[in-house]
Amino acid sequence: MAYDSSIISIDAARLLDRIEQLGQIGRDGGDRLVRLAGSDEDKRGRDALVSWMKEANLEVAVDKIGNIFGIWRASSEDDQAPVMVGSHIDTVIDAGVYDGCYGVLSGIEVIQTLQAAGFVPSRPIVVAAFTNEEGVRYTPDMMGSLVYAGGLSVEEALSSVGTDGSVLGEELERIGYAGCEEPGFLKPHAYVELHIEQGPVLEKEGIQIGAVENLQGISWQRITIEGVANHAGTTPISMRSDAGYAASRVISFLRDRATSSQTPTVATVGCISFEPNAVNIIPSRAIFTVDLRDPNEHSLQAEEAALAAFLTDLAAAEGVKIATERMARFEPVTFDATIVKIVEAASEQRGLTSKRMTSGAGHDAQMIARICPAAMIFVPSIGGISHNPREFTSGPDLVAGANVLLDVISNLASDHEK
Amino acid sequence: MAYDSSIISIDAARLLDRIEQLGQIGRDGGDRLVRLAGSDEDKRGRDALVSWMKEANLEVAVDKIGNIFGIWRASSEDDQAPVMVGSHIDTVIDAGVYDGCYGVLSGIEVIQTLQAAGFVPSRPIVVAAFTNEEGVRYTPDMMGSLVYAGGLSVEEALSSVGTDGSVLGEELERIGYAGCEEPGFLKPHAYVELHIEQGPVLEKEGIQIGAVENLQGISWQRITIEGVANHAGTTPISMRSDAGYAASRVISFLRDRATSSQTPTVATVGCISFEPNAVNIIPSRAIFTVDLRDPNEHSLQAEEAALAAFLTDLAAAEGVKIATERMARFEPVTFDATIVKIVEAASEQRGLTSKRMTSGAGHDAQMIARICPAAMIFVPSIGGISHNPREFTSGPDLVAGANVLLDVISNLASDHEK
Repeated sequence: MAYDSSIISIDAARLLDRIEQLGQIGRDGGDRLVRLAGSDEDKRGRDALVSWMKEANLEVAVDKIGNIFGIWRASSEDDQAPVMVGSHIDTVIDAGVYDGCYGVLSGIEVIQTLQAAGFVPSRPIVVAAFTNEEGVRYTPDMMGSLVYAGGLSVEEALSSVGTDGSVLGEELERIGYAGCEEPGFLKPHAYVELHIEQGPVLEKEGIQIGAVENLQGISWQRITIEGVANHAGTTPISMRSDAGYAASRVISFLRDRATSSQTPTVATVGCISFEPNAVNIIPSRAIFTVDLRDPNEHSLQAEEAALAAFLTDLAAAEGVKIATERMARFEPVTFDATIVKIVEAASEQRGLTSKRMTSGAGHDAQMIARICPAAMIFVPSIGGISHNPREFTSGPDLVAGANVLLDVISNLASDHEK
Repeated sequence: MAYDSSIISIDAARLLDRIEQLGQIGRDGGDRLVRLAGSDEDKRGRDALVSWMKEANLEVAVDKIGNIFGIWRASSEDDQAPVMVGSHIDTVIDAGVYDGCYGVLSGIEVIQTLQAAGFVPSRPIVVAAFTNEEGVRYTPDMMGSLVYAGGLSVEEALSSVGTDGSVLGEELERIGYAGCEEPGFLKPHAYVELHIEQGPVLEKEGIQIGAVENLQGISWQRITIEGVANHAGTTPISMRSDAGYAASRVISFLRDRATSSQTPTVATVGCISFEPNAVNIIPSRAIFTVDLRDPNEHSLQAEEAALAAFLTDLAAAEGVKIATERMARFEPVTFDATIVKIVEAASEQRGLTSKRMTSGAGHDAQMIARICPAAMIFVPSIGGISHNPREFTSGPDLVAGANVLLDVISNLASDHEK
């Protein structure tokens, strides 16, 4: 049967209803949504997901790290590398209902729509829900996809000890999601992740679809400045070694540099503490974090180097000692240019505005990009708010994104050579 | 009997021994010196002080707020307004042994030296130990001298609730230091307070005696900046309302202004916190304190006004809301020029280097200056360190300061008209 994307669309009501249903699973006493990886709430979310996969006649597989796969093998080509749609359904504490879940549920929706339209894929289509993307209970985050891509051994991941003292492997066993498949057992032909932007750009610019062409590299450092505690009244300014003032200089430097940069570099100081933290004592110590991001590795390294040079000069000028500790470092990821173009073309064909953009947040797609061509599709987040119950994307925007996903997946699962 | 200050000096060994003894009273399990106002440790320190006053044949009186007075009435002029020497013996937590105690014990030492030398004062000489100067357990600090000078009612002070839930009046009753005298019952002819500098100036400049001519005014504010919490990766710099960055601008502004000022203004940001205080979230709120000091009221007001104007501009430029709350405000105190000259002259006569200086810290002298001519004498603090077990002033410096006090008190207690 010929397939024409201009005549089919996803079932908006079914998709929105499932997002709503999944968002009600894991509410705590204060009505906060909390589905941490490996928890009882996670199990209930997974059970619902599996039931919808079965409703779509998908073959359900679970791997050793608990990643869930719903596989549609519809043709004689079912030994081909599959097209994979994925994201996650674990949440942060007091989460919104869209982050992750939207991508997974849209994957099922796309398959059901294609099935109903009589679409015959040239290769299997798989929906994946990766374990512990949020990293709230167990570190690192994006764990399931990292293991799947071979970046972390399954043994190491399963032995992770949670913030509550639990062991991930035991918890997966307990909730019935310690599967048999080896992570990586399905090597994708391509991977596409549909996600809310979690940033303000699409909404502010009035654009419906983000064709995500890359994902920022991340550099996290903890900086400790050691000065000398002294009386705030009796110590002349010229005789001070003020760790707090030195910290303020770093914060201003980072921001002013990012503001004046020609690149999309962002820099954030999110955590800070002073010691002894008394009104009338000059801080002897300031500890703060630096989050630097840039989609270009050379630019990110340049930002790190500029910060290091600034710290060296600052230490000499202010008579303080400065130590830096690397907390995390991920190189930028460049997504597959072909898939990005397909996303743009699908948006245009649907009459949707789109723009190429960078993902500022980390996603499972950055891990899966290690093993196959991958890209992402973003839809607007109102106010850029995420990881918060006020996280919101309008119904029409959610539907538009899922229809773009429909077109992209049908394209990737069609044999263009035939 | 003729009195010649060139031929008598205080008993160095006796003074240093008493400082040492008092410094051993109130050690906790970790050998930390902790004599908080109204505590059992305070009682033991007071008992030792009273025993030394009695050893000096002083008449001991206690007022309703627990201030202790050792009165030497040696002449027929004992109805004259007395010369008062004073300070405090309560301490901070993990204190040094000199802060306060040095001034009180030197007062007793001066009287005993004058007695032994046959000096006949023209008016009584009184040593005062004021209650709760440190303000650690009960607020406000400098409470005993404030009440004595009429700045706070004795009822209000006695009803102060401590950090441990105790009531000061009940604690003073319990330890036997709720006296009968009305605060202010002795109206001094003059007041002199000998104290360690608690700052680095005298040591760094190699000067032995500080002739303290004034005391800085203090302005304490708590500033709250409200921005918008957003994802550190997905929010472009241009779309941020970063409360932490705005706070850093204030800290830098205060410091840079103080550095370039032609006045002795000091500015300190000692406390800070960010919310939500996460590595990858732009701070939605920054709360910090500002401690501004200047010996001139007009200058202090100018600094406050400059800060207020900067905050107004900053709020507009950064899209944040800024609220300020006054925590404390004391006007500067100008000490008595005649007594300051006597301190300088006594230093010169002793062959000691001296300089006029400003007290950066608060002292009981600033309260007593409301009711009589007052001044202070400073001796060097090594490294400017105070409120810390490493607080240190050398023996010779302590003795030199006590000898200057001796000369100043004998001068003030001599009838120059006769």
